[in-house]
Amino acid sequence: MAGSNGDDRSSHAGPNNGAAAGAQEAPATFDEIRQLLGDLPGPDLESRSAATTRQQQLTKPRGSLGRLEELAEWLAAWQGAHPPRMDRPRVAVFAGNHGVAARGVSAYPPEVTQQMVQNFIDGGAAINQLCANCDADLRVYELALEEPTADFSQAPAMSEDECARAMAYGMLAVEEGFDVMALGEMGIANTTSGAALCCALFGGTASDWIGPGTGIDRSGLGRKAEVVDQAMQYHQGHLDDPLEVLRRVGGLELAAIVGAILACRLARTPVLLDGFTCTAAAAVLYKLDPHLLDHCVVAHVSAEPGHRRLLQEIGKRALVDLDMRLGEASGAAVAIPLLQAAVSCHAGMATFDEAGVSTPD
Amino acid sequence: MAGSNGDDRSSHAGPNNGAAAGAQEAPATFDEIRQLLGDLPGPDLESRSAATTRQQQLTKPRGSLGRLEELAEWLAAWQGAHPPRMDRPRVAVFAGNHGVAARGVSAYPPEVTQQMVQNFIDGGAAINQLCANCDADLRVYELALEEPTADFSQAPAMSEDECARAMAYGMLAVEEGFDVMALGEMGIANTTSGAALCCALFGGTASDWIGPGTGIDRSGLGRKAEVVDQAMQYHQGHLDDPLEVLRRVGGLELAAIVGAILACRLARTPVLLDGFTCTAAAAVLYKLDPHLLDHCVVAHVSAEPGHRRLLQEIGKRALVDLDMRLGEASGAAVAIPLLQAAVSCHAGMATFDEAGVSTPD
Repeated sequence: MAGSNGDDRSSHAGPNNGAAAGAQEAPATFDEIRQLLGDLPGPDLESRSAATTRQQQLTKPRGSLGRLEELAEWLAAWQGAHPPRMDRPRVAVFAGNHGVAARGVSAYPPEVTQQMVQNFIDGGAAINQLCANCDADLRVYELALEEPTADFSQAPAMSEDECARAMAYGMLAVEEGFDVMALGEMGIANTTSGAALCCALFGGTASDWIGPGTGIDRSGLGRKAEVVDQAMQYHQGHLDDPLEVLRRVGGLELAAIVGAILACRLARTPVLLDGFTCTAAAAVLYKLDPHLLDHCVVAHVSAEPGHRRLLQEIGKRALVDLDMRLGEASGAAVAIPLLQAAVSCHAGMATFDEAGVSTPD
Repeated sequence: MAGSNGDDRSSHAGPNNGAAAGAQEAPATFDEIRQLLGDLPGPDLESRSAATTRQQQLTKPRGSLGRLEELAEWLAAWQGAHPPRMDRPRVAVFAGNHGVAARGVSAYPPEVTQQMVQNFIDGGAAINQLCANCDADLRVYELALEEPTADFSQAPAMSEDECARAMAYGMLAVEEGFDVMALGEMGIANTTSGAALCCALFGGTASDWIGPGTGIDRSGLGRKAEVVDQAMQYHQGHLDDPLEVLRRVGGLELAAIVGAILACRLARTPVLLDGFTCTAAAAVLYKLDPHLLDHCVVAHVSAEPGHRRLLQEIGKRALVDLDMRLGEASGAAVAIPLLQAAVSCHAGMATFDEAGVSTPD
């Protein structure tokens, strides 16, 4: 597994020049991961409280900036700093291949995963433009694209070792010093894996969680449902443990996202989650402990229909709803300017006193 | 009436250094305004079609950028150019005072209108930060703050001459050469005027349209309802003509916004509308002819409860829903980065051919 430098023209840093936040802690087994979960830091209540206090002094009716105020407080709490910063956003895209792609569950052939990774590196994809647009650093991480996971409807997608190593890889990808980490994925057929994760974690039937993904037709949608149903049948009795669910029906890039979320918590880096597949990976942590996602905001609600249901399950409200369904962290990147707006207002506005503006009658 | 230079550090241009787009056409009477309405340009179908064609060649599943794709096509259609541009966004805030403020319908005293205009000029308000954040030029236009409109529950807010001159002022404020114009307002008590406009244009009762505005308490809300009910009674029989509605229950800054929307159409400048009060002003044009708002997108849905109902009436879906309720074009400015994202993706992404990415099976 090698990290590709997918920096675009607005990138800030070369590859691996920061301290790997998770380096000390990178676990090798599920047991080690479980141990780690008990040691994660919580929010910095002092910074959050400082943000709340300042918010009430700024020249606006209290609460009138709505979610921008919540975001400023959330960033302060999870960066562990007041005022919060948004000078260094990073976008991380994890790419993996899925054996289940051979079942005809995607509108695109599996080689598109590698081709799109090359497109990221060459600067031709939507995510390159979106990162340039908000001055975010972009990194792309390939997870053994030449070795797809097993078809999860007929076998576990990964061994525990493979899954734990992919999680550790995701952890090691997280460097300190970023103000937010926007996470996303690329992997042909991975909305099928996302649907299987949701079905295993939250119940329901395949049809509750599948959708057109990149734009598959009705017969493809039928194959998707069949694959997920077969998987639920094959793995039944082994789906009580969320990490086991991840190993059995997830994917390498999804395991890496789970690891990256944990490493961001250790690095005091708030996380923006992209759409359906990325949130499905994050939901593994939610099922282990809902507070494991407290440092994460879901950036957008995808047009992939399962995402709305998934957000209800994990109790998150997305920042924007723009009918996007591209993946590659595009929905997360689109929301970065909202965090920048929140922080600019919070840090830069005048107080009532400073501006000589009258307070309410 | 004098335009204040509220430019912040990211501004691009000094005051009045561009051609006033509406200069030739600035009307002096309602009849002249009505004449103008028949001569407004429609969308540039060729540019829109070029945008649609290119959209389908870019390295993403068709439609997967959702509303970002629609925005790129809309910008091309109304800028009359392909590819669309987003290099020069402008934010225009119109400020006016309302006689009805004396009725205790706002949580803030009326002098706050002038104080906040000074705060805009000094760079201390939310809108200054939001403009800096997306590199937008900010202008603030004061409409005779020392001469509030009449209390519209007991008299027409304005004479026809005053209303038409405020509209003309709004038209003259529009300069050519901007890629989008984000419109907003500042005026203590103007959510009461917005509610009266909605009630007169779309029916219902005062309670369907009023809300807490800057944060008024329950007894204030009762006074707001009473004022709007009194106004509907006072003006009944004279509310069939939308321009007459604007004159009777609107405000100077709201008339200026109506004028600015028309001048933007002439200048081929797409418009981002801010929240409840700004959209209520725009709704005057909608009632004259729904197509008069085709070059406008509503940027955000306000926490002011009437806004959601108003959007249903005019058939618009806001871009973001962030519980904001500040006015001063803040919701419109927050959405500018979405237009920038749309244009960056549209203009900068590689096509399937260029990137060597396989198309669907």
